[in-house]
Amino acid sequence: MAGNSFGQLFRITTFGESHGEAIGVIIDGCPAQLEVDLDFIQSELDKRKPGQSKITTQRKESDTVKILSGVFEGKTTGTPIAMLIPNEDQRSKDYSHNTDVFRPSHADYTYHSKYGIRDHRGGGRSSARETAARVAAGALAKLLLKTQGIEIVAHVSAVGKIKAPNVFIENAQEFIDTREQNIVRCADPATAEEMIEYIDSVRKAGDTVGGVVSCYVKNCPVGLGEPVFDKLHADLGKAMLSINAVHGFEFGSGFEGSTMLGSEHNDIFIAAQGDESVKTLTNFSGGIQGGISNGMPIEFRVAFKPVATIMHNQQTINAAGEAAEISGKGRHDPCVVPRAVPIVESMAALVLADHWLRNRNAKLA
Amino acid sequence: MAGNSFGQLFRITTFGESHGEAIGVIIDGCPAQLEVDLDFIQSELDKRKPGQSKITTQRKESDTVKILSGVFEGKTTGTPIAMLIPNEDQRSKDYSHNTDVFRPSHADYTYHSKYGIRDHRGGGRSSARETAARVAAGALAKLLLKTQGIEIVAHVSAVGKIKAPNVFIENAQEFIDTREQNIVRCADPATAEEMIEYIDSVRKAGDTVGGVVSCYVKNCPVGLGEPVFDKLHADLGKAMLSINAVHGFEFGSGFEGSTMLGSEHNDIFIAAQGDESVKTLTNFSGGIQGGISNGMPIEFRVAFKPVATIMHNQQTINAAGEAAEISGKGRHDPCVVPRAVPIVESMAALVLADHWLRNRNAKLA
Amino acid sequence: MAGNSFGQLFRITTFGESHGEAIGVIIDGCPAQLEVDLDFIQSELDKRKPGQSKITTQRKESDTVKILSGVFEGKTTGTPIAMLIPNEDQRSKDYSHNTDVFRPSHADYTYHSKYGIRDHRGGGRSSARETAARVAAGALAKLLLKTQGIEIVAHVSAVGKIKAPNVFIENAQEFIDTREQNIVRCADPATAEEMIEYIDSVRKAGDTVGGVVSCYVKNCPVGLGEPVFDKLHADLGKAMLSINAVHGFEFGSGFEGSTMLGSEHNDIFIAAQGDESVKTLTNFSGGIQGGISNGMPIEFRVAFKPVATIMHNQQTINAAGEAAEISGKGRHDPCVVPRAVPIVESMAALVLADHWLRNRNAKLA
Amino acid sequence: MAGNSFGQLFRITTFGESHGEAIGVIIDGCPAQLEVDLDFIQSELDKRKPGQSKITTQRKESDTVKILSGVFEGKTTGTPIAMLIPNEDQRSKDYSHNTDVFRPSHADYTYHSKYGIRDHRGGGRSSARETAARVAAGALAKLLLKTQGIEIVAHVSAVGKIKAPNVFIENAQEFIDTREQNIVRCADPATAEEMIEYIDSVRKAGDTVGGVVSCYVKNCPVGLGEPVFDKLHADLGKAMLSINAVHGFEFGSGFEGSTMLGSEHNDIFIAAQGDESVKTLTNFSGGIQGGISNGMPIEFRVAFKPVATIMHNQQTINAAGEAAEISGKGRHDPCVVPRAVPIVESMAALVLADHWLRNRNAKLA
Repeated sequence: MAGNSFGQLFRITTFGESHGEAIGVIIDGCPAQLEVDLDFIQSELDKRKPGQSKITTQRKESDTVKILSGVFEGKTTGTPIAMLIPNEDQRSKDYSHNTDVFRPSHADYTYHSKYGIRDHRGGGRSSARETAARVAAGALAKLLLKTQGIEIVAHVSAVGKIKAPNVFIENAQEFIDTREQNIVRCADPATAEEMIEYIDSVRKAGDTVGGVVSCYVKNCPVGLGEPVFDKLHADLGKAMLSINAVHGFEFGSGFEGSTMLGSEHNDIFIAAQGDESVKTLTNFSGGIQGGISNGMPIEFRVAFKPVATIMHNQQTINAAGEAAEISGKGRHDPCVVPRAVPIVESMAALVLADHWLRNRNAKLA
Repeated sequence: MAGNSFGQLFRITTFGESHGEAIGVIIDGCPAQLEVDLDFIQSELDKRKPGQSKITTQRKESDTVKILSGVFEGKTTGTPIAMLIPNEDQRSKDYSHNTDVFRPSHADYTYHSKYGIRDHRGGGRSSARETAARVAAGALAKLLLKTQGIEIVAHVSAVGKIKAPNVFIENAQEFIDTREQNIVRCADPATAEEMIEYIDSVRKAGDTVGGVVSCYVKNCPVGLGEPVFDKLHADLGKAMLSINAVHGFEFGSGFEGSTMLGSEHNDIFIAAQGDESVKTLTNFSGGIQGGISNGMPIEFRVAFKPVATIMHNQQTINAAGEAAEISGKGRHDPCVVPRAVPIVESMAALVLADHWLRNRNAKLA
Repeated sequence: MAGNSFGQLFRITTFGESHGEAIGVIIDGCPAQLEVDLDFIQSELDKRKPGQSKITTQRKESDTVKILSGVFEGKTTGTPIAMLIPNEDQRSKDYSHNTDVFRPSHADYTYHSKYGIRDHRGGGRSSARETAARVAAGALAKLLLKTQGIEIVAHVSAVGKIKAPNVFIENAQEFIDTREQNIVRCADPATAEEMIEYIDSVRKAGDTVGGVVSCYVKNCPVGLGEPVFDKLHADLGKAMLSINAVHGFEFGSGFEGSTMLGSEHNDIFIAAQGDESVKTLTNFSGGIQGGISNGMPIEFRVAFKPVATIMHNQQTINAAGEAAEISGKGRHDPCVVPRAVPIVESMAALVLADHWLRNRNAKLA
Repeated sequence: MAGNSFGQLFRITTFGESHGEAIGVIIDGCPAQLEVDLDFIQSELDKRKPGQSKITTQRKESDTVKILSGVFEGKTTGTPIAMLIPNEDQRSKDYSHNTDVFRPSHADYTYHSKYGIRDHRGGGRSSARETAARVAAGALAKLLLKTQGIEIVAHVSAVGKIKAPNVFIENAQEFIDTREQNIVRCADPATAEEMIEYIDSVRKAGDTVGGVVSCYVKNCPVGLGEPVFDKLHADLGKAMLSINAVHGFEFGSGFEGSTMLGSEHNDIFIAAQGDESVKTLTNFSGGIQGGISNGMPIEFRVAFKPVATIMHNQQTINAAGEAAEISGKGRHDPCVVPRAVPIVESMAALVLADHWLRNRNAKLA
C-alpha cells in the first residue's frame, strides 16, 4: 500500500533513488512464452536517458539494463522478471546545498514532513530518475502488446505556448520515425524547430518551461477496460498523473468537450464494411466508451508543468522553518517533455497490457 | 480485479444496475468508533438524486439509504458497513427501444462486445445511477475526515462556454450554503443564473451540454499521498475519471501550467508565522508536491462531456451490425454537472480518507 | 485491508452481523454468461442453515437468498453479483447476559480490545452466521467450476476420537448422496451412526465436541496455483483457517508425511494411457506439486475445535477486568462439523474458481 | 496476481531462480525511521544458507545480501527497500539430466504443464533457494517487531518419528542460544542428538526424511488480526504453507483439539494482576481468538514432507510423456527442517509486521 506498485495482472514494482546504488523494477504477471527483445528494451531506455541533446540534462548515465530473472533462453517463463539499472554518475556533492533547504515546488518539504527523514541527494526517490524503471517495464509491455498488433505512439504536441497541429500519420513506425528526426520529439517537423529554438532560449535564461505530450493507441481491440472504477481512461489517467511534473490529463474531446452540445459530441456508429470493424464517424470519445475501448484509436493528452529546478536564486525555508535562499545548481532539463515521450508511452503500455490480460476473463467462453 | 472496488484501506465495493432491484455499497476499513450521522448521509444523497429541479432528469427516486451492517448504537464497529438504496421508479419499458440498438456515445456497444450479454434497461451497470452508492460511501468518508477538520467543497465552475470567475469563500459551510442557493450549484450567483437559463434552453432544444466542476480540499494536513504511483493527485485523477461522462482532470495550474515558465510557476515557501503552518506564496502546485499534500488548499477541476442521450433522432447500428435509427427517449439530464457536484466531492472524500489512513503508517513512531 | 474480502479474480466481500438486519456478499469477477441456478444456490444454503436436525442449533433461519444485481435473464453479466440473506430469528435478548462479560474461547475479549466497541448480540461479526454468505458465493463458484467439470465434495471424517475409514466413492454425486443420507454428513454410514449417537450424548451433557472435515477436488485440471506465495494449497489453507473454529489444515500426506522417508513419499509418475492423463502411483502430494495442481485428486483435511459455547457455568472476566461467571445460554451446535461440510466445500470452490481464472493468463497463447 | 508478493501493508515481492543471476526481494511499506542492522540481517541468512553442516546440502553459497535502496544513513526512509543476493555456485551442469525428465514429487511436471516453458536448472523458481529472499525480508520485519518488543522463535520439534518434548524457555534469546548449540536446531539437547544421528543415517542411505518446526510468538500485543478472512492464524497458515515442502499447519490445540470436548478446551480468562495483562489458564487457543491475538503466546506447528530428491534411481516420465528413469544427482538436504527454522520465523515475522501495521487503523483514535 506504499504506492510503489502499479497494475493488477501485469504488475510492476519499482525501487531505487536518484543517487543510490541502482534503480530497478520487478514485473509480475507477464505470461510465459513471450520473446524478450533486450535490444528493444535498451533502445526505449535510450530515448529517456539523460544527456541526449543540448535540450536535456547533461547528467551522464548509460542506463544499461540487466535482466536478473524470469527469462530463460530468450523467453519469459511466467516467473517475476527483475530488471536492474545501476546508477553511474552519482555526483551527489551537487546536492549538498539542499541537505537542509527545501527547493521550491520540489518534493523536499513534503517528503521531509511525511517521513521525518529524507535522502536529499538529487531528490532521492522523488527524482524522475525512477521513471527509467518504468520505461524498462513498459518496453516489455509493448512487446506483449505487439503480439496482439497493439501499438502505442506519443509525441510532444506543445511546448509552452507553441502548439503542434494535428498529425495524421497512420502507421505507427512512420510516426515514430518522423518524431525521432528531431530532438524535441514532435512529429510535426516545422513546429519541432520552433520548439527547439524556444527551449534553447529558455535554457540560456536559466529557466524551464512546460509542455504537452499527446499519445495514441492504435489497433486496440474492443473490450479493454473494467467498469466502474477501473475504466480504461481512469487507469490511463492515474498512470499519467503518476509521472513526475504532470498536472493534467484529458482524453478524446477532453476539457474542450465540456463546452460542446450532445448533438455535436455524439460519435455516430458506422456499420462494419467488409473486413473493417465497427467505426464511429467522429472520435470525441477518444476510443473509449463507458470505460471500455471501442476499437477506435485511443487518444489522450498529458500536461507537464515546467521543471522546478531553475538556475535562479530563490527564496525558501530550511528544515528549521527559517527563511533561506537557494541557488540553482545540479544538472536538469530545461523542458521535460522530449524525454517524457517514452515515459508516457511506457505507462500507457503498462495500462493496456494489464487490461488486455484482465479482459481475457470477461466472458466464460 | 473486475473494477468494482475503490480505495486501499478505506475500500468501497459498489453493486447494482439502473433498473435492478437495488444498488448499494460495502465500505471495508472504516475505523471503529466513528459516529454515523445518517441524516447527513441522506442529505448528501438528496443532492445527487434525480428530479430535484427543472434542469435535472424527471425520474423519481427517493434514494433512501438503509445501513445493513457495521454500525452499532450509532457508531462504526470496525466491521464492513453495507448500505442499500432500493430502486423505485424502474420504468424499464422506456428502454425497450434500445434492447437491440446501440445508443451513440453510450456504453451499449462496448458492454455488448466485452461481455456478450447486456442488461439494456437504462444502461444497466453503466448508468450513472451507480454513483448514488458512491455518494453514500463518500458521505461516510466525509464524516471521518471531519473528525480531522478536513473539508471538501465543489461547485459548478463552467457550463458549456459559460465560466464562473474564481470564488473566494474561505469557510466551507458558507461556500456550500452559497452554492446551494441555486439549482445549478455554482457558488457565483450571477453566473449561476446565466448557466440555468442556458441549460434550460438546451433542454428545450432536446439537447445536452457539458461543464466543469471545481473542487477544493480545505485544511488538509501535510503528508497525504504515497509516492510513486499512488500520488495524491493520481488517485484523485483516477477517482474523477471513473465518474460517468468525465473526460478530463487537472490540478493546480493544470493544462495552463504547461504553458508557463519555471520562474513563474514555482511556489515560494513562506516560513510559518505564529500559529500558522508553512505556506506558499502562490499555489500552482494545487496543494500537492511530489504527490504528497503540502498543507495548502488542494484544488482540481473535472471536465464533463455533454450527456449522450439527446431528444433527437440519430443514426446508429444494431446488434446484428446493421444500420438503424434511434429516437431519443427516457428521462435524462440536459446537463449533468449540477448533480455531479456531490459525486465529485464524494470521490474526493474517498481518496482523502484512504490516504489519511495510509499516512498513519508512514513513520514508525 | 480490513479482511472482509477473499480471492483475487473471483473476489468476494461479505458483510453482516449475527443479529443485524441481514448478511450478504458481493461477488466481483465472475465471468459473464454463466447460467445461475438459484435453486442450487438455495439448496447449498439449506445444508448450512441452523435447525436442520437434533444435532444442530435450534435457531430458526430460513436463510432465503435474494440476488440483487449482476444477473440478467438467468445469466451473469460480468457486473458484481450481490446476494442478500435477511436475518429473521434475531432473539437478541438471549445475549443480554454477555453484554459486558467475555465468553471463554470466544472473540468477545479480542474484538473488545481491538475496536473498543462490540456488537455483543450473538457474537456480532465473529459469529459463524457470516459463513452463510460464503456458502452463497461458494455455490456460484461451484456453478462456474461445473462448466469445467470440476467437482468438490467433503464429508465429516472424524468427530472427537471417532474416525471414519477412507471412503472410495469415485462419482461426486454418489458421494454427496451417500453423505446426505445421515444428519452428521459422514460418507461412511456405519461411522455416521456412531458419530450421531456420540454427538447426541455430548449435547445432552451440555457439552460440545470437535471434528474433522475431509475434502476432495475431483477432475481438477493441471496448472491451477501460482508460485511462490499463492500456492494452491496455501490459498486452500488460508481459506479453511478463515472458517470459524478451524485449528488445523493438512493436504496430501499432511502431518503424517513429516514422519516418512523420501523413498516412501515420492509419487511416481505413470505415463498417460490412451485417453487418460498423466497419473501418479500414489498421491502423497495430495494433487498439488510445487503449489500447482497436477491432475490427481486434491485431498485435504480441516480440524475444527469444539464449539466454545457450552451449557455449563464458567469463570471469566468482564469488561472492567473483574472476575465474573457466565452461564451457558443461547442456541448453539454441540458439534459444528455437520454444518461445516458445505462451508468447507464453498471455500474450496472459491479458491479453485479464483485460480482457474488466474491460470487463464499463465501463458501467452 | 502472479503470486510473487506477500503481505498487504508490509508487502514483499521476491524474484529469482535457483541458477539465475541473483535472487532478491523488494519490501514496500516498511515505515520510515527504522534502524537497519545489516549484520543481523546477514546473520539470519547465515542460518538458512546451504553448506552449514554435514546434515545440510553441500552447495556453497555465501548468501551475502546487499541493500540497493530505501535505506539512508542507516535508517529506512519509507521508500521501497530492495535487497539482492547474487547466486555464486551455479553448478547447472548437475541438472542437465533433468532437462527433459520430470523428477517425482518435484514441480517439474506442473511448471512444464502450466507455463509450457521451464528453467530446469535446480528447479528454477520452484527451488527453495527463493526462501533466502524471504529470510532477508523477514529479518527486517523482525527488526520492526523488536521495536515493539515482539519476538519470534522456532525450533525443530520433530524429525521423522522422533519428537521433542515441550520446551519451556521463556526468554527468546535463551531459546535461540539453546537451539543454536546443535546443528539440527532443536531446543531440547537430548532429542537433538537423536535427530542428528537419525538424519545422518538417512543421508548415508541416500534417502531423506520429513519433520516438524514449532514456532512461538512472544509478547504479541492484543488486537493483531483482521476478521473475517484475514484472521491472524489464517495468514500465518498461508505463510507457512507457501514454504516449499510444507504439508500441514496447526495452531494452539490443532488437530488434537478436534478430539476434545468444549469443557476441556475452553481457555478460562484470569483477571489482570498488578502489572500483568489479562491471561488465560490454558492456551488451547494458541494465542488467537476470533482470528485476533489475545495477548497469550502464539503457538503453531508446521509439517514438512521429506525432500523429494533422493540418491536412488526412480521411475518417471519425460516431456514427451514416455516412461523414463531418473538417477539421484545434485546437492540436496537429507532433511530440510534445520534450515527451515529461520524461514518459518521469517514468514511469521512478515505476517506479524503486516498485521501490526494494519491494526494501527482499527480504531479512530
